[in-house]
Amino acid sequence: MAGIELTRIRLNQADVINGARGGRRPPTLPKLRELLKILAEVVDLNNAAAVLGWDEETYMPEGGAKARGQQLSTLERLAHIRFTSDRVGELLTDLKRELSGADPNSDAVRLIEVTAQDYTKAIRVPPDFVGKLANLTTLSHRAWIRAKKMSDFSIFRPHLEKLVEMSKQYATFFPKSDHPYDVLIDDSEPGMKTADLRAMFAALRPELVKLLGAIASRPQVENLFLHRDYDKMRQRDLGVEVITKFGFNWRRGRLDETTHPFMTSFGIGDVRIATRLVPNPGISSLFDMIHEAGHGLYQQGANPAYERTPLNESASVAMDESQALLWEYLVGHSLPFWEHFYPLCQKAFSPHLDSVTLMTFYRGLNRVEPSLIRTEADEVTYNLHVILRTELEIGLLEGKISVRDLPELWNAKMKEYLGIVPPDDARGVLQDAHWSSDQMGYFPCYTNANLISAQLWEKINQDLPDLSNRIRNGKFEELLSWLREKVYGHGRKFETQELVRMATGSGITVEPYLRYLKEKYGQIYGF
Amino acid sequence: MAGIELTRIRLNQADVINGARGGRRPPTLPKLRELLKILAEVVDLNNAAAVLGWDEETYMPEGGAKARGQQLSTLERLAHIRFTSDRVGELLTDLKRELSGADPNSDAVRLIEVTAQDYTKAIRVPPDFVGKLANLTTLSHRAWIRAKKMSDFSIFRPHLEKLVEMSKQYATFFPKSDHPYDVLIDDSEPGMKTADLRAMFAALRPELVKLLGAIASRPQVENLFLHRDYDKMRQRDLGVEVITKFGFNWRRGRLDETTHPFMTSFGIGDVRIATRLVPNPGISSLFDMIHEAGHGLYQQGANPAYERTPLNESASVAMDESQALLWEYLVGHSLPFWEHFYPLCQKAFSPHLDSVTLMTFYRGLNRVEPSLIRTEADEVTYNLHVILRTELEIGLLEGKISVRDLPELWNAKMKEYLGIVPPDDARGVLQDAHWSSDQMGYFPCYTNANLISAQLWEKINQDLPDLSNRIRNGKFEELLSWLREKVYGHGRKFETQELVRMATGSGITVEPYLRYLKEKYGQIYGF
Repeated sequence: MAGIELTRIRLNQADVINGARGGRRPPTLPKLRELLKILAEVVDLNNAAAVLGWDEETYMPEGGAKARGQQLSTLERLAHIRFTSDRVGELLTDLKRELSGADPNSDAVRLIEVTAQDYTKAIRVPPDFVGKLANLTTLSHRAWIRAKKMSDFSIFRPHLEKLVEMSKQYATFFPKSDHPYDVLIDDSEPGMKTADLRAMFAALRPELVKLLGAIASRPQVENLFLHRDYDKMRQRDLGVEVITKFGFNWRRGRLDETTHPFMTSFGIGDVRIATRLVPNPGISSLFDMIHEAGHGLYQQGANPAYERTPLNESASVAMDESQALLWEYLVGHSLPFWEHFYPLCQKAFSPHLDSVTLMTFYRGLNRVEPSLIRTEADEVTYNLHVILRTELEIGLLEGKISVRDLPELWNAKMKEYLGIVPPDDARGVLQDAHWSSDQMGYFPCYTNANLISAQLWEKINQDLPDLSNRIRNGKFEELLSWLREKVYGHGRKFETQELVRMATGSGITVEPYLRYLKEKYGQIYGF
Repeated sequence: MAGIELTRIRLNQADVINGARGGRRPPTLPKLRELLKILAEVVDLNNAAAVLGWDEETYMPEGGAKARGQQLSTLERLAHIRFTSDRVGELLTDLKRELSGADPNSDAVRLIEVTAQDYTKAIRVPPDFVGKLANLTTLSHRAWIRAKKMSDFSIFRPHLEKLVEMSKQYATFFPKSDHPYDVLIDDSEPGMKTADLRAMFAALRPELVKLLGAIASRPQVENLFLHRDYDKMRQRDLGVEVITKFGFNWRRGRLDETTHPFMTSFGIGDVRIATRLVPNPGISSLFDMIHEAGHGLYQQGANPAYERTPLNESASVAMDESQALLWEYLVGHSLPFWEHFYPLCQKAFSPHLDSVTLMTFYRGLNRVEPSLIRTEADEVTYNLHVILRTELEIGLLEGKISVRDLPELWNAKMKEYLGIVPPDDARGVLQDAHWSSDQMGYFPCYTNANLISAQLWEKINQDLPDLSNRIRNGKFEELLSWLREKVYGHGRKFETQELVRMATGSGITVEPYLRYLKEKYGQIYGF
């Protein structure tokens, strides 16, 4: 039974479904075939919903909104019903037993484990709770929009109080964990614990604050040339050129325009990125495209054998985000990258950059400066924003912080970590949509993603010692191959920590990221 | 119980689903509510599939084809399972009884009738037969493509023989009718019989042949100016201008480019037309757009109360096609239309039409000439192509014609009706995809559509005596209002014959169409 691989089983399944003849015996594990058939249907429904979602964000006329909501709701309900059926539970239980002697790293065993995790989550949370939470989230989100607009936390406060209570209640549906926040993290970063986060932050925060101090002690770099309008269509054309060189496959993907950039896919052969096109600040639309293409390259590099199964996803939200960041920052904000692309860029946006040297451009792109808004922060200050939010979330879940004290605590932490204080709550505690959208526990992913991207990057550069030179010449094949082999091709087979360990020899640590920041910004700021 | 309207029931249904409070009693007919809930789900699945189909024809990268096939197959299967469940059958039976005293023209009664027709069809045909036919159709279609390419009927013949046998078998699943062809017609034109068709053709064919003779006896009109390249984008822009004036609502619709023009909709608020853009012949892309916009105006004019029910469709294929033809020919090929749009058109395509007068242009657009290909035929000869095919289909179903004799019979009829003989089977018996796609029984719709369009047109001009003048001034509001009131707003509530009778005072007849042709072509050719 050892070493049963999904590929073989799926081929056999296809034979059975298509009524293959010629005396071949049906494969073993008929229950696995039955499960795969149900999962394929669920994946089809989810992918159909994703197509409808893509259309909604790109081409749907406004009159289509109401019916689209109904269609999506029906697809999601049917997928949920199908996936949470008793039969799926029975099959999972039986298959765990049948596969007990098999290679724990075989596709089949991992598929059952991953599916069982999803199944458990899906059936543990009562439908009533889901409905109540959905209603509360709708109201909270509206209240948050109003609160942010008026910069008045008191409008949002009662909603957030209820959301915190529901988050606590949500945790009770799962087996007792070391910390109530563990359950929330687990939704976006399976396997990670609050204790891990705390250790990580304890190692990260003082070093970031120190680095920021070192940078502040040096003369600031110039970036005024970014404060101009950069033609939208030329940003798009340059983005297409960059992404194509990265290896984005246009026969299995496309690019469209939208208001909030995103990536979505409906299978390995249909991976779509959508970007907003804006002339400023700087060449931000180009970086939006690179970021989404990073997500897209992950999906295009998936294992075809995992199609229509839960293994055909990224390992986690953090792992997915790490790939967007790797291409956007480790590659796209690096000197070798711009050594290759800067002449093209100068030409595309002439005369804006005619008298700006490569080094001035590179330094300006990477300017570090404490700022109020997380999404606009640079590589050094970004994670301080995340740490701040995560600490507050943990305090709320523990009951050590009350919602009413959040604005004050927020501002105190901003002062402590970044040395600046928001002039109002709109640019402070009310800036992010996550809490109003019931995404408590999501923020740590961003920092995890940063750490993973740098840790992989360090290992890649060890494995491909002439990578900088290749990038300088616009060659990305070896980089992409490495990522496909070590990350993309595994889909969701391994948990993030496991995958990072397999790829780099160690679980997620802060050191590579700190080494990367210190070296890069030491060069840029000269210390 | 009389006069129960769907609108009220659906409102009540919404109350029940949303848990309305305040002591209002649940509405009557809980079974109707239950049925509507199931039907809404089926419609959602079908509309989701339609979105996926639209995407496939417009933006999907080629790599998405395989997964898209799987997604569509899953959606269609789930819709079929849900719709053909025993519970739907029970509800229909019970509701027929419960509504036996109600107004036979109420929405509720008509909904039950229409749904029962669909249900009966869906459950009468065994799934095995459907699967076998789908496989055969796939193979036949491939064989037909090869046969047409090589102009070799013998490649297609064995497949067509099997398809004819399956069409005969299909007819046996339904109660005995007067003629085996009745069942096939019924799929696209519910309520129409072979005997009706024969009578219609007997009245139509000699008159068309006579008219064609009269035209042939006169000097031919010039249309050389159409044999040039007409800029694709300018055709699109002119098309958008025309369609907008017709009243196409862009907030509830859109236009995209594709290879084979089509219209699709996912609800009254999201109606999409897609057109091919080609520079020649003439301004054919403009007419493709007008044709599809005709279908689109029908959908946009639907009754919102019918959303998510089977009533939210056109009355039949023929009625739907009649609206495409009405806008394309009765409006778009008329003199008043070009009196308004010709200056714009001349300007858009200058210098092609600089020295072409309006009358020369109008006559050239409407040039009549026997030709080999149905889809390229003019208004006068078009229906002779349809009659030819329908007569052959009836003969095949009756067993009076054998497949092997088709090429010879085709050519003989072409000689008899149109006076020309195809030089090869590719331009003869192999030209249309219908037979290879199991669409036997579909052709008569085209002629029905022509007849309906002219019959409605005659009545519209009686009701709106200054219509020509309005069109001459680019005003289409009254025309669209008339069509919405008399046709579009009824959805599928009434059968085509019934709807035509309500709108014009008579069932479908050939006379208005013949009067229209004789008057128009008498003027153009001067007899």
